[in-house]
Amino acid sequence: MDKNKTSIQPINWQDDALFLLDQRRLPAELIWLEYDHPNDVAIAIKDMVVRGAPAIGITAAFGVVLAARQAWNVAGVNWKQAMTAPLARLAESRPTAVNLHWAIHRMTALYETLPDNESAEQVLLKEAQAIHAEDIAANHVMGKLGADLIDPKSTVLTHCNAGALATGGFGTALGVIRQGYADGKIVQVYADETRPWLQGSRLTAWELQQDNIPVTLQAEGAVAALMATGKLDWVIVGADRITANGDVANKIGTYMLAILAKYHGVRMMVVAPTSTIDWQLNSGDEIPIEQRPEYEVTMINGQQIAPEGVPALNPAFDVTPASLIAVIVTEAGVILSPSTEKMLKIKE
Amino acid sequence: MDKNKTSIQPINWQDDALFLLDQRRLPAELIWLEYDHPNDVAIAIKDMVVRGAPAIGITAAFGVVLAARQAWNVAGVNWKQAMTAPLARLAESRPTAVNLHWAIHRMTALYETLPDNESAEQVLLKEAQAIHAEDIAANHVMGKLGADLIDPKSTVLTHCNAGALATGGFGTALGVIRQGYADGKIVQVYADETRPWLQGSRLTAWELQQDNIPVTLQAEGAVAALMATGKLDWVIVGADRITANGDVANKIGTYMLAILAKYHGVRMMVVAPTSTIDWQLNSGDEIPIEQRPEYEVTMINGQQIAPEGVPALNPAFDVTPASLIAVIVTEAGVILSPSTEKMLKIKE
Repeated sequence: MDKNKTSIQPINWQDDALFLLDQRRLPAELIWLEYDHPNDVAIAIKDMVVRGAPAIGITAAFGVVLAARQAWNVAGVNWKQAMTAPLARLAESRPTAVNLHWAIHRMTALYETLPDNESAEQVLLKEAQAIHAEDIAANHVMGKLGADLIDPKSTVLTHCNAGALATGGFGTALGVIRQGYADGKIVQVYADETRPWLQGSRLTAWELQQDNIPVTLQAEGAVAALMATGKLDWVIVGADRITANGDVANKIGTYMLAILAKYHGVRMMVVAPTSTIDWQLNSGDEIPIEQRPEYEVTMINGQQIAPEGVPALNPAFDVTPASLIAVIVTEAGVILSPSTEKMLKIKE
Repeated sequence: MDKNKTSIQPINWQDDALFLLDQRRLPAELIWLEYDHPNDVAIAIKDMVVRGAPAIGITAAFGVVLAARQAWNVAGVNWKQAMTAPLARLAESRPTAVNLHWAIHRMTALYETLPDNESAEQVLLKEAQAIHAEDIAANHVMGKLGADLIDPKSTVLTHCNAGALATGGFGTALGVIRQGYADGKIVQVYADETRPWLQGSRLTAWELQQDNIPVTLQAEGAVAALMATGKLDWVIVGADRITANGDVANKIGTYMLAILAKYHGVRMMVVAPTSTIDWQLNSGDEIPIEQRPEYEVTMINGQQIAPEGVPALNPAFDVTPASLIAVIVTEAGVILSPSTEKMLKIKE
């Protein structure tokens, strides 16, 4: 296998059904779940069978294909009307990642041009597959653009999982890391374990281990001490939503990393496809932040770790202001010291 | 029970033996372990049956009592010589907390004045009990001094467990919080879960819940977003070692909190008895930082959470420079904006 490729593919369409690699079971077990109903896809997104903003978008696109099949079977020529409910469920499955809405919108814009009197399944399937393929291609472009910014033999830290598992394949932050490692730009990766869901321990460490890229785990609380040693050159993360001014919503803890990076003179790189940019929102204050169940904090793997009845905060994301970000890398180009003006150039 | 008292006592001497509340099993089970051999006490400290700098010091003092009994039984008039090995084991059990060395030194200084031809057990027991009682008294003094600095109806955040379980009883940081809550200064406490050992979830949440003080848990990664809301007034933590210039070694993650607090204009309070001050060290750079086993990061409750073979950093402590600390509270007085000069005034 090429050093800058990965064979990990979390989303697969096969035999007229959608297959998702169950990310809740990793790294202990590799289990594929099969979906042929759009409402089950919405539940899979909500329950985090699949997670990561680009992967959620691609999954939702295949969910629209399943919705179209079901709508045609049930409602015939009224199939477009029958799409409303399942698409609303898909759209509501996770509130923060904008790629979900972007993908549903792209699929909807297409099927509204199609005739009422035939099944749209095959046309929509091609579109979903195009979204999937374009995402992987964008990851490879971003991988090169991001790696080009990094000096040889650098050490980087990443948070959560913005890897092959979070995208169509290859990854956003981990795409830059894969490319950077292949190019000799990166020699060591530190991964935050990323409480409460432990995406760093369970997914990122696993992905990088599969590709033989040196990775060391640490709790979020240990990051500041690691930065104080002067070892880190970059923090590289993905994004769930980027606003028109360059503010970034990403996994809870990202804002903490940005402040610590600024304090220690470490540069902060955000890697995300343009489908992550929400041009409707002027700043991060307007981004809805998903609050997830308290038991994700008070229990681990079904075991109670806190006393019964203690409340817990569990915001899934936080917002990092553009002023703390050194560079945003998209497939359309890089934005150094992001601002509304510089973001607009990427839009054009 | 008085609002500003607590009945939690992690260390008890009873029926000629030392009993420790096994903090590894909390909050699921309340189990007391009995010790009558100093080497087993050293293992208990190393394995974190008991933890928290003041509690470790008190436990070590009782360990010296057990060592004296054993030495007299085995070596008779040569008992002082027979103390060397068990005391070395106690001293080496954890490297960062200086209270351990302080307590052993105080016990040693006493027994060196005692005659060779009789058992020192009862005299040393009285000294260990005095250390224990003085620690609780110091906690109450610090509780009042710290609470006096806090405005009414404040919201505070604490890290790890610097409570009754970390001391003789009542607590350092949690002593201030108990007193502050009783006085109407504090209305809400946020507790970091404190990975990897989860002292916040397992111990602090349990202690505060026992005393009906409102406590909400969150992962360390969520603290910056909490601070950004403007809700927090103080971060209140304990210390494992304070150097002559006011630098503070404390549970990993404390340095992160200090940077985030500074960035958001939240004040940082460190609460520790003077036995925590190491006057021999000029700055925090000289403090030895304990590295604990990697499995504390890669496993939780015996379950593997990371892929097999992935390395992990697990420093137990970090160092916060005095410049990030608003105030150090000791039983001898408070030190605002700590410096070498101001620290010396407390010494005198």
